Amino acid sequence: MGMVGGGRGAFIGAVHRMAANLDGQIELVAGAFSSDPEKSKLSGEDFFLDAERVYGSYAEMAEKEAAREDKIDFVTIVVQNHLHFAVAKTFLEAGFNVICDKPMTLTLEQGLELREIVAKSGKVFCLTHNYTGYPMVKEARRMVRDGELGRLLKVVAEYPQGYAVGDVEGEGQGKISNWRADPKVAGASNCMGDIGTHAHNLVRYITGLEIEEIAAELTAFIPGRELDDDGNCLVRFTGGVKGLIFASQISNGDENALSIRAYGTKASIEWHQEDPNELIVKYANAPRKTYRRGNDYLGSAAAANSRTPFAHPEGFIEAFANIYLAAAGAIADQLEGKSAPEGGYDFPTVDDGVAGMAFIEATVRSSQNNAAWVKPKA
Amino acid sequence: MGMVGGGRGAFIGAVHRMAANLDGQIELVAGAFSSDPEKSKLSGEDFFLDAERVYGSYAEMAEKEAAREDKIDFVTIVVQNHLHFAVAKTFLEAGFNVICDKPMTLTLEQGLELREIVAKSGKVFCLTHNYTGYPMVKEARRMVRDGELGRLLKVVAEYPQGYAVGDVEGEGQGKISNWRADPKVAGASNCMGDIGTHAHNLVRYITGLEIEEIAAELTAFIPGRELDDDGNCLVRFTGGVKGLIFASQISNGDENALSIRAYGTKASIEWHQEDPNELIVKYANAPRKTYRRGNDYLGSAAAANSRTPFAHPEGFIEAFANIYLAAAGAIADQLEGKSAPEGGYDFPTVDDGVAGMAFIEATVRSSQNNAAWVKPKA
Amino acid sequence: MGMVGGGRGAFIGAVHRMAANLDGQIELVAGAFSSDPEKSKLSGEDFFLDAERVYGSYAEMAEKEAAREDKIDFVTIVVQNHLHFAVAKTFLEAGFNVICDKPMTLTLEQGLELREIVAKSGKVFCLTHNYTGYPMVKEARRMVRDGELGRLLKVVAEYPQGYAVGDVEGEGQGKISNWRADPKVAGASNCMGDIGTHAHNLVRYITGLEIEEIAAELTAFIPGRELDDDGNCLVRFTGGVKGLIFASQISNGDENALSIRAYGTKASIEWHQEDPNELIVKYANAPRKTYRRGNDYLGSAAAANSRTPFAHPEGFIEAFANIYLAAAGAIADQLEGKSAPEGGYDFPTVDDGVAGMAFIEATVRSSQNNAAWVKPKA
Amino acid sequence: MGMVGGGRGAFIGAVHRMAANLDGQIELVAGAFSSDPEKSKLSGEDFFLDAERVYGSYAEMAEKEAAREDKIDFVTIVVQNHLHFAVAKTFLEAGFNVICDKPMTLTLEQGLELREIVAKSGKVFCLTHNYTGYPMVKEARRMVRDGELGRLLKVVAEYPQGYAVGDVEGEGQGKISNWRADPKVAGASNCMGDIGTHAHNLVRYITGLEIEEIAAELTAFIPGRELDDDGNCLVRFTGGVKGLIFASQISNGDENALSIRAYGTKASIEWHQEDPNELIVKYANAPRKTYRRGNDYLGSAAAANSRTPFAHPEGFIEAFANIYLAAAGAIADQLEGKSAPEGGYDFPTVDDGVAGMAFIEATVRSSQNNAAWVKPKA
Repeated sequence: MGMVGGGRGAFIGAVHRMAANLDGQIELVAGAFSSDPEKSKLSGEDFFLDAERVYGSYAEMAEKEAAREDKIDFVTIVVQNHLHFAVAKTFLEAGFNVICDKPMTLTLEQGLELREIVAKSGKVFCLTHNYTGYPMVKEARRMVRDGELGRLLKVVAEYPQGYAVGDVEGEGQGKISNWRADPKVAGASNCMGDIGTHAHNLVRYITGLEIEEIAAELTAFIPGRELDDDGNCLVRFTGGVKGLIFASQISNGDENALSIRAYGTKASIEWHQEDPNELIVKYANAPRKTYRRGNDYLGSAAAANSRTPFAHPEGFIEAFANIYLAAAGAIADQLEGKSAPEGGYDFPTVDDGVAGMAFIEATVRSSQNNAAWVKPKA
Repeated sequence: MGMVGGGRGAFIGAVHRMAANLDGQIELVAGAFSSDPEKSKLSGEDFFLDAERVYGSYAEMAEKEAAREDKIDFVTIVVQNHLHFAVAKTFLEAGFNVICDKPMTLTLEQGLELREIVAKSGKVFCLTHNYTGYPMVKEARRMVRDGELGRLLKVVAEYPQGYAVGDVEGEGQGKISNWRADPKVAGASNCMGDIGTHAHNLVRYITGLEIEEIAAELTAFIPGRELDDDGNCLVRFTGGVKGLIFASQISNGDENALSIRAYGTKASIEWHQEDPNELIVKYANAPRKTYRRGNDYLGSAAAANSRTPFAHPEGFIEAFANIYLAAAGAIADQLEGKSAPEGGYDFPTVDDGVAGMAFIEATVRSSQNNAAWVKPKA
Repeated sequence: MGMVGGGRGAFIGAVHRMAANLDGQIELVAGAFSSDPEKSKLSGEDFFLDAERVYGSYAEMAEKEAAREDKIDFVTIVVQNHLHFAVAKTFLEAGFNVICDKPMTLTLEQGLELREIVAKSGKVFCLTHNYTGYPMVKEARRMVRDGELGRLLKVVAEYPQGYAVGDVEGEGQGKISNWRADPKVAGASNCMGDIGTHAHNLVRYITGLEIEEIAAELTAFIPGRELDDDGNCLVRFTGGVKGLIFASQISNGDENALSIRAYGTKASIEWHQEDPNELIVKYANAPRKTYRRGNDYLGSAAAANSRTPFAHPEGFIEAFANIYLAAAGAIADQLEGKSAPEGGYDFPTVDDGVAGMAFIEATVRSSQNNAAWVKPKA
Repeated sequence: MGMVGGGRGAFIGAVHRMAANLDGQIELVAGAFSSDPEKSKLSGEDFFLDAERVYGSYAEMAEKEAAREDKIDFVTIVVQNHLHFAVAKTFLEAGFNVICDKPMTLTLEQGLELREIVAKSGKVFCLTHNYTGYPMVKEARRMVRDGELGRLLKVVAEYPQGYAVGDVEGEGQGKISNWRADPKVAGASNCMGDIGTHAHNLVRYITGLEIEEIAAELTAFIPGRELDDDGNCLVRFTGGVKGLIFASQISNGDENALSIRAYGTKASIEWHQEDPNELIVKYANAPRKTYRRGNDYLGSAAAANSRTPFAHPEGFIEAFANIYLAAAGAIADQLEGKSAPEGGYDFPTVDDGVAGMAFIEATVRSSQNNAAWVKPKA
């Protein structure tokens, strides 16, 4: 594996490396870790890389790696949002598989174009919507698919955070990384783009529902900010399902309180990211059940995505690593000329990325129209 | 105390009686428990009443009680929604204080008229928005008032229930009491009127915020129903605060999961009706705190509304009884010619009832206009 | 009902009155609320009693009430421990039914004598081990009886409190009521007598197990105290079941954290007094279940001891009131000449009181012998 | 790093490898994964090792690695209990640093001997009492050391599991690995040795207390078993602290419910392994606090042992990896001739292993003497 971005001090780059390391199946061997060649070099030393495979730019890396016999099997892209498209395009066209951080691109248009590039390349493209890597999220998805909830009626997905609230009272934009506050780098939305998309992706992954219409109210509570730090949406899903998606970075004291509740005619489920090893199932007239990771009674996907027996808590890095393992499996199959397993691979694709970009675009468009109902464009 | 409605088998009548009994300060001595005089009489026997004070109609009761030396100090109204107005008017005009179940009236217009009747009567009128009787709700209100949360930014209040979902798949309207499904008896809304108003009242009580604009999507998931069994609202509160209010009777497996989250610049609070003895306070960079009922560190209102030391759980009936005690205190003061204490009385009034009716009317009006933003009319 | 003790300011007297009031079936009409006749009189006024039925001593009360046509149906005894025996004996021998606070007597010998007095009297004697009044405790008992746990293997019951810890660092005995620190008033044990017996009673009520041998280590952490404020016990129960019973008043910050865990070959249960409306059931290889009060799927005892539908939390007072209702039912049957219902009455009797006194005596005896194994004497 | 034991299918070997992999600082390069050379070879292929560094026996491995220029920096020992001593001795005497699974040895005598061997070798010896790797455990330790709890009074540590209960009703020893049921392989205790020692170690790590006397009741509930599957202990700690340590493998439905409660005169702490990212702190008269991993308000040890910001749950593998990182740091310092940092290293040593063996020996000795009080021998 190679990496673009994610040098010293970058949070998400470190997470990607731990996820890749965990199972001893993936080895980081090359990288362009910074647009500053000197910084890139120092990061390469941190990661014990051969100096000749530490590059000063992603373009150089794509070119030189493509020429090597022992070239990387895939590249991981952990640069700022506005560069995702160019880097992904470069590597895909140079014949590499790609794992890319989300949101996939700066704009929906870029997303649609990237979809075509991926299709043309025939390469594996994986988007790290990491929360779908949790075993109990996979169990929730299985329950919905197996009809255990009956017909779905309502879905509530939320992702409240508070990390940006310190800045509300006039201390500037401090805690939100500057680039996330800049539309030219982050895109049309901050909060919905950064975490609202995770809630949206989680709904799609577990329930299979798509948004038909959405009415969104985005707010920038932090004085002087161009982009939203809070958003609340009414949603009309496919199949007559109704619901809410809301996210926030000014919900003071909340941490990563991503959760989903899906209500069906037979049963309902509830899952909380901060307590990821449990899945709560509720019924009209029977005791509630708590499904817990690592138990034999769980479905095959939950089992396959667990590393330890029950009640040895698994968390964020393990879920992230599950996305890596699934993508690595697809890449290995491709390298070995194998076809996909029945049921396909289980990682977020370029299509999920397009759906996410369409979600962001729709929420911004609705909000600019006083929370009018709008249809996503993809 | 006298009671209109609430005879044998009526859930809410029994709750009112337990609330009145609990502290040994209030005695039920008269009633018109049913529109069927025979049933009323049997109920009177259940409650050990003198036969002569068990009446066949509320009109008879108001007239005969008014003529007695030892007349009741107040009447409790626990009839169906559409009768609240007429019964309240009758007793107020006959010179009685009134405790009335919610929603206050059938329509907003009735609510506005009742407000004038109350004002003219000079009598005590208490509406049993019982959830504000919980000690930790009072502590939450104190925190907001004392500025401990800083400036409020966002409020999320919800009341998901699942009791009506059994009927979704075509088995009729079964579990929702027939009268709640009938607009002529229940009013313009079922779900928002029955429980959405509780969420709305809780927001107002704790935060002091009023709704400036609301965009509501009400749904009747149960085939053949005229009234909503689910509703989701975007809200713009006074002071630039944003938020969500949602309620449901088809959230399968949820019970009475009323909760509120209020996010401020200094701290945030979270309270759950099903775990009422705790109040969670969250901060940007300090450990979360859990305030627990019955402790010496709580404010005076929480203390005054507790009956037992910490960790002897108190619940729904105790909270309900707190509303009764507060109203009874006002009634006693009036009987004894005392003026109200500094800070006033702490029970929901006719003004709260009008606000609730305006909330219901606004959600229905918005929903009929495709969730357009509307302003409440009162 | 009449009351001995429990005047102004007494915590447990107020609880008993609320429990008696709650359901409108029991009326306080007489009392000797204090050994000081003036204080007794003032308390009687608080409770709206006829002055002639407020007595200056329990002996006077027993005598005068016995002579009345409209005498009380039963007396509630809420005096200090060392007076329980004498008051109970006096009223039983005067022909009254008795509800008595726990621990039942000052010594095991008194307990055994009281058992004979009760038997001879033919009267109802109810001991307020109130925690067995919770609906979910009754559901737990049903599960064990119905064999849903299989064969029991292990039981862990605990009651940690922290209220006495403030005094550890030399500030005297402050927070423990003086009389509880005095062996002549409280008996041979403070902590095990006051709350350890509740844990012990809960085990017996739910599981039906008796202690065969116990090894106890009691400690007085508070300097200068004669009686224990903490106790830990290894237990060998009937049927080869093993376990632990521990209680504490120096577990700083714990409130009334009474809990029980009973482990069987088929399933296990877990119940926490501070979260009393839930009962957790665990299995070897199936999702955990949470049984919640008020649901239709519960057994008849849980249902009969609930007053409101699910998720309107019920608590300590309601559980206490259930003990009162059960005892009042037995008293009413006796007054009306009815025999007991099939399955008997469901309240703690003098036999439970004797078992509690034997438990206290055994823990003290073991502890005095360096935690040697001892057998309870009854 | 090299590994002895832990080939294909071995749970704990896989955990050690993931822990070593996670941070990209440690590379597995050699191993003797099975006593069957063929199996060892296949495992080596799984782990992408050079065939020449996959050995057929640990003795061969120690000898050949010692002779290499690029020899391993340390060996990880994950064989069955009875082989720990011989393998550790062999590698220490061959000049290697050692990371060893617990319990450290088969007997206390071996433990004492190993302590001398380690001392003589001058090598790093790390015992993987992995639960002390959790950040919030380190925060708890800091609180005790900084005096935030005041003087300790009582400690309750427990580790209930249920995995062995399926066999109680006569189906043999099935679910307990055969070797754990065999005293010649597992040692004098199964349950106390396997998990009781974790509870004991956790107490020592957080509180610094040692056991002065212990009274233990061990039980083999599974018919036909030679070794205990449940154990309950009364404990007298240094400094007059009292408490309980109990562990079980027949607590049906419990998973890895390791927890500790430490009660002090100023405050108390509570930590649960299944919810490892939270630490609850309780006070006599102040709101409870919940400290959560990843926040800036935590001490340096908690911070240094976290990989991600708050509320990205970290779990078992991360805690395990913290032990590896700490040991690897010590090994690196030794290789580079650096002295230990101020305050020393933070991983369990041979002394902790000796304490654990002494704990096991004492519980078995006490239990064989009818739970008499005994003193640990080391």
